[in-house]
Amino acid sequence: MMDIAEFQGIIERMYSAKDRKRGSAATFVWLMEEVGELATAIREGTTEEKEGEFADVLAWLATLANVEGIDLAKVIRRKYAGGCPGCGEMVCQCHHEKP
Amino acid sequence: MMDIAEFQGIIERMYSAKDRKRGSAATFVWLMEEVGELATAIREGTTEEKEGEFADVLAWLATLANVEGIDLAKVIRRKYAGGCPGCGEMVCQCHHEKP
Repeated sequence: MMDIAEFQGIIERMYSAKDRKRGSAATFVWLMEEVGELATAIREGTTEEKEGEFADVLAWLATLANVEGIDLAKVIRRKYAGGCPGCGEMVCQCHHEKP
Repeated sequence: MMDIAEFQGIIERMYSAKDRKRGSAATFVWLMEEVGELATAIREGTTEEKEGEFADVLAWLATLANVEGIDLAKVIRRKYAGGCPGCGEMVCQCHHEKP
C-alpha cells in the first residue's frame, strides 16, 4: 500500500525547503531530465533501471505538484475514479480507440 | 485516500485493452503530449486546468507503467519511503542542494 497523498507528503517533508526556492520552472526542468532517463530505461534498460526511473518521474511529478499546491490524490480521484473522463465508462469506450 | 496501486488498477481496467496493442513507444508519445499540456497549464492556466493536467500526466504515467509491467506503488515505496535515495535522510541533505 502506498497512498498518493502519503507519498506526496513524504516528498514534501523530504524536499520542500529547496523545492519552493527553486520554483516551478526549474522543477519542471528536473522532471524533464527524469522523463528523459525513463525514455532511456524503456528503450534499453533492465527492469531494475525502469523501476528506478518510474519512481523518479513520479517523485518529481509530486515535487512539482507540491510547488504548485496541487493535491494529486484529489485530482486523480475526481477525474478518473468515477470512470473515463471522455465517456464516463469504467471500461473506456472512447479515448483509447485512438491509437 | 487514493492508493497508487488502486489507481494503477483503475487505469488498467479502464484502458489496458487498447494500451497493450499500442505499446510502449506510442504510449510514451501520449504521455509527452500530456506533459506539454501540463507545461502550458503551469505557465498560463487556471488552478482547475493545472489540476486536470496533473491528473492526466499521472494517468498516462500509470498507463505506461501498466504496459511495461511496473508496479508504481512498489517502486516508489522502495526508493523513497525509507528516506532520500541520495543521502538516506527523511529530510534530504543532499539532492536538492542542487538548484
